[in-house]
Amino acid sequence: MDILVFGGAGFIGKHLCSRLVRQGHRVRAFNKPPCSGNWPDIAGVEWLPGDFTNPVETASVLDGVEVIFHLVSTTLPKSSNDDPVLDLKENVASTLHLLDSVIKIKRPPKIVFISSGGTVYGIPKQIPISENHPTDPICAYGVGKLSIEKYLLLYRYLHNLDYRVLRMANPYGEYQPVHSGQGVIPVFLNKALKGDVLEIWGDGSVIRDYIYIGDAIDAAIKTMNYEGDQRIFNVGSGRGYSLNDLIHMIGELLEQRIACHYFPARPFDVPVNVLDITLAKNELDWSPGTPLHVGLRKMLTYMKSCLD
Amino acid sequence: MDILVFGGAGFIGKHLCSRLVRQGHRVRAFNKPPCSGNWPDIAGVEWLPGDFTNPVETASVLDGVEVIFHLVSTTLPKSSNDDPVLDLKENVASTLHLLDSVIKIKRPPKIVFISSGGTVYGIPKQIPISENHPTDPICAYGVGKLSIEKYLLLYRYLHNLDYRVLRMANPYGEYQPVHSGQGVIPVFLNKALKGDVLEIWGDGSVIRDYIYIGDAIDAAIKTMNYEGDQRIFNVGSGRGYSLNDLIHMIGELLEQRIACHYFPARPFDVPVNVLDITLAKNELDWSPGTPLHVGLRKMLTYMKSCLD
Repeated sequence: MDILVFGGAGFIGKHLCSRLVRQGHRVRAFNKPPCSGNWPDIAGVEWLPGDFTNPVETASVLDGVEVIFHLVSTTLPKSSNDDPVLDLKENVASTLHLLDSVIKIKRPPKIVFISSGGTVYGIPKQIPISENHPTDPICAYGVGKLSIEKYLLLYRYLHNLDYRVLRMANPYGEYQPVHSGQGVIPVFLNKALKGDVLEIWGDGSVIRDYIYIGDAIDAAIKTMNYEGDQRIFNVGSGRGYSLNDLIHMIGELLEQRIACHYFPARPFDVPVNVLDITLAKNELDWSPGTPLHVGLRKMLTYMKSCLD
Repeated sequence: MDILVFGGAGFIGKHLCSRLVRQGHRVRAFNKPPCSGNWPDIAGVEWLPGDFTNPVETASVLDGVEVIFHLVSTTLPKSSNDDPVLDLKENVASTLHLLDSVIKIKRPPKIVFISSGGTVYGIPKQIPISENHPTDPICAYGVGKLSIEKYLLLYRYLHNLDYRVLRMANPYGEYQPVHSGQGVIPVFLNKALKGDVLEIWGDGSVIRDYIYIGDAIDAAIKTMNYEGDQRIFNVGSGRGYSLNDLIHMIGELLEQRIACHYFPARPFDVPVNVLDITLAKNELDWSPGTPLHVGLRKMLTYMKSCLD
């Protein structure tokens, strides 16, 4: 198939493009040009430099596309609260512009949107969180993701747009940047490897659902091929680990004591988030096969290889 | 109290300002300058001409305000789907700018936001619709209203903003314009009075919850004074009437046969919408006291007086 990945040079995007190419698809990846260095080394991916917030640029790359993966976010949960208007304009309005371009195509592509299982639900009323849990985000990033989900549903209703949403937990794995603030695992592993002190926001009791990137990509591909009635899937490991659990596991892996410094909790961090992944298991015939300690070991091997 | 009404010159705004002045409040009304004629004749209201989509103008009128009513929408359900990006920018982004201005005030005012009970829920899964029903709008107007609700919750969480939301059904009553497309009752009454043919979209079976404006204003004032835990209230009559019911009632009132022309149904009209108003009854000690036939008679008397 002819597949366009918005945000293909990001952490999830690289893994996704790589897998899609290996499956024989024609893959084009639209991304901000890299600040330094080159595009990721993924043989067969056609790189389209562009700005997702520019409707003319996104509209110009849709020719012949059968599937769109939308992986772009210009903000992170933390930074989104600094300027919610910016988040709204760059992410929600830009996606709406894209949808307006998509529905003008004679055979509009299917859209797979990567939403945020960690933020759209807000503070959970029950654990694990199923897809019909109330959605009351406590960060602008989550409100934006939720708004995009609602617009997708609207465009399906009005224009018969085919789409699916993955509400993804915290993916981690090889190639994840250690300095972007996108995930705690690469940051912790990197610091632990270097013998630096880890910085914890709160007392370390915050519980998260971490999914190995390979499992997340499995789910994304199965979602792309899914033709059933469901539109929204939670994608996580279905298991929760506290930051302290994580630090303990990293210590065991590295066979060393991990030094930690605890700071005050951050208001945009929900205390616990574990996704109920029953729907994805049943509908997509998917399950996350990589336990956290296995994924951590793989990632550690990768990070050590980068240090060499 | 010192009260600012954004959209004070609109249908709901006029009734609200009038009631607030009678209750002894200091009322300022911010509104687009009228295209023709003067501001509504409401003694004691200070009129502030301004553009809600201009953050500088909305920020400039907040001094000393204790309560803000936010009644502005630049779109209608129908028109919102023609340009969802415009709806997003003019309504959601403008409200976010206002919230950013509000939280900078030393003692931020309480905000009462008029949302849309007729659109935020989408196609109902059960009737009557309670506040915890899923929110899957099928018009951009509804997505925008819902997004604003979510941002209000976010700003409460991050900045301790005090707010309440009224998800209002279809208000009708005196001063409602007959040509703006804002409600079916004034349009039908006006045409019936003139002996014109009514235009019905669909077969007339579409069921709506119509609330008399006086009852809606009661709820808005009680919400302003409410200090309890609830944030979102459905405000409707709690009863559903089909368009054909409505036409029958108008025919009985006018003692004449009403001529109708039926057109194809519109995709953005949900088939049925009746709100469950139990929460507002219990929490606000409010109930809608005006049955539809009584409200219609009042409105008819008013419309006849305009014709004289």
